[in-house]
Amino acid sequence: MPIQVAVLTVSDRCYKGERQDISGPALCQKVQELGWSLISTAILPDEYEQIVQFLHNQSASGKVNLILTTGGTGFSPRDITPEATSSVVEKKAPGLVEMIRFESSKNNPQAFLSRSEAGIINQCLILNLPGSPSGAVEGLSIVAKILPHALALLRQSADENDHNLK
Amino acid sequence: MPIQVAVLTVSDRCYKGERQDISGPALCQKVQELGWSLISTAILPDEYEQIVQFLHNQSASGKVNLILTTGGTGFSPRDITPEATSSVVEKKAPGLVEMIRFESSKNNPQAFLSRSEAGIINQCLILNLPGSPSGAVEGLSIVAKILPHALALLRQSADENDHNLK
Amino acid sequence: MPIQVAVLTVSDRCYKGERQDISGPALCQKVQELGWSLISTAILPDEYEQIVQFLHNQSASGKVNLILTTGGTGFSPRDITPEATSSVVEKKAPGLVEMIRFESSKNNPQAFLSRSEAGIINQCLILNLPGSPSGAVEGLSIVAKILPHALALLRQSADENDHNLK
Repeated sequence: MPIQVAVLTVSDRCYKGERQDISGPALCQKVQELGWSLISTAILPDEYEQIVQFLHNQSASGKVNLILTTGGTGFSPRDITPEATSSVVEKKAPGLVEMIRFESSKNNPQAFLSRSEAGIINQCLILNLPGSPSGAVEGLSIVAKILPHALALLRQSADENDHNLK
Repeated sequence: MPIQVAVLTVSDRCYKGERQDISGPALCQKVQELGWSLISTAILPDEYEQIVQFLHNQSASGKVNLILTTGGTGFSPRDITPEATSSVVEKKAPGLVEMIRFESSKNNPQAFLSRSEAGIINQCLILNLPGSPSGAVEGLSIVAKILPHALALLRQSADENDHNLK
Repeated sequence: MPIQVAVLTVSDRCYKGERQDISGPALCQKVQELGWSLISTAILPDEYEQIVQFLHNQSASGKVNLILTTGGTGFSPRDITPEATSSVVEKKAPGLVEMIRFESSKNNPQAFLSRSEAGIINQCLILNLPGSPSGAVEGLSIVAKILPHALALLRQSADENDHNLK
């Protein structure tokens, strides 16, 4: 079961080229260390419509089953990544972001300030991660062990679906 | 204060008779061990409308104040129990499913993959539990101590309601 | 960065004068111990529209950047504070109430019965706290260390916003 990943950096400054994107490449490196396939990367500004369109397009492409976002999950007025994510997903996966916040908070209580969301559309999982390089990589590392099972289920046909087996 | 329970198994295969429902009966046994009253049981396929109708009918019956579901909370394309639950409830009770995910994760990190929801309609609490027999029973056991207080409050008349007393 | 606080007690009985509000004053005392500025206090009944209007008015006043509510977050039929809060906020901040439930549960497992919500409107954070004096003060104490950073970000101008810096 290949894990095919799109990484989206959400940052006004990185989009404008005023700052180098460090978080996106850090996530890409972690994705490759995990042995997953990096399919695409993008940098977008903190603009609701652009983020929504990217999430829709990538999830409908049939080429990725995991979209990782970094940035835009905090309390700044421009932070809008969770709202864009919530509007796109058909099903929520609240446990993934609960797990990231809870585990990250052991080192950093401010992890509970993350407003990250996670959810499913088109057999694709969208997972918001923090904007800092270390926070993004730590968040991905926390859920990396349980994601392959989730992604395998996402691609399951209806016939294979049986909850009593779990 | 009697606790009157409906148990709903959500599983395409169990509904079609292709597989024996083990999770529903395991929950029923646990309900009886707790000294609660088992009022009704049902098996439904992973069909949004049927689940919604069951939750509405049971909560409006006046005969149950707790509906436990098992199944349909994962990442398979047919899993739709949390979405059906969210559409029915008038009020959310997010702490209950946070507690189940967190406590269950101590033995099984995959517990954070549960997309379970919990909420209130018609003075009745609906609680999603995992589809596996062990996961369902463990989930119920985790919240069993705090549910009686919640269910007692649900039936309270408006006059008895006073937050400063708590 | 001044933290300017409104404290709202939601309780039918306190509103009617049938009971003395203890939770609101306890929160006010804690706010002042933290060195934050107490701007306004109010007592409202468990009435959706009145709570919504208060939250809208206070957040639009430009005078407060933190609204603390106490009461109305439980399972009683009249409890409606989380629903009023959810309808008002533009952005959710789920980690704050996850943190309060989780940390409070170490002393009191019933903390997971809190249905509290938290979110942002108009550069103002709204945080639901439990109705009991001890629960309200404990909840505020749990997040008191991380709130100043969040509130500082809320007032940030768009230009200062940069996730890669965090």
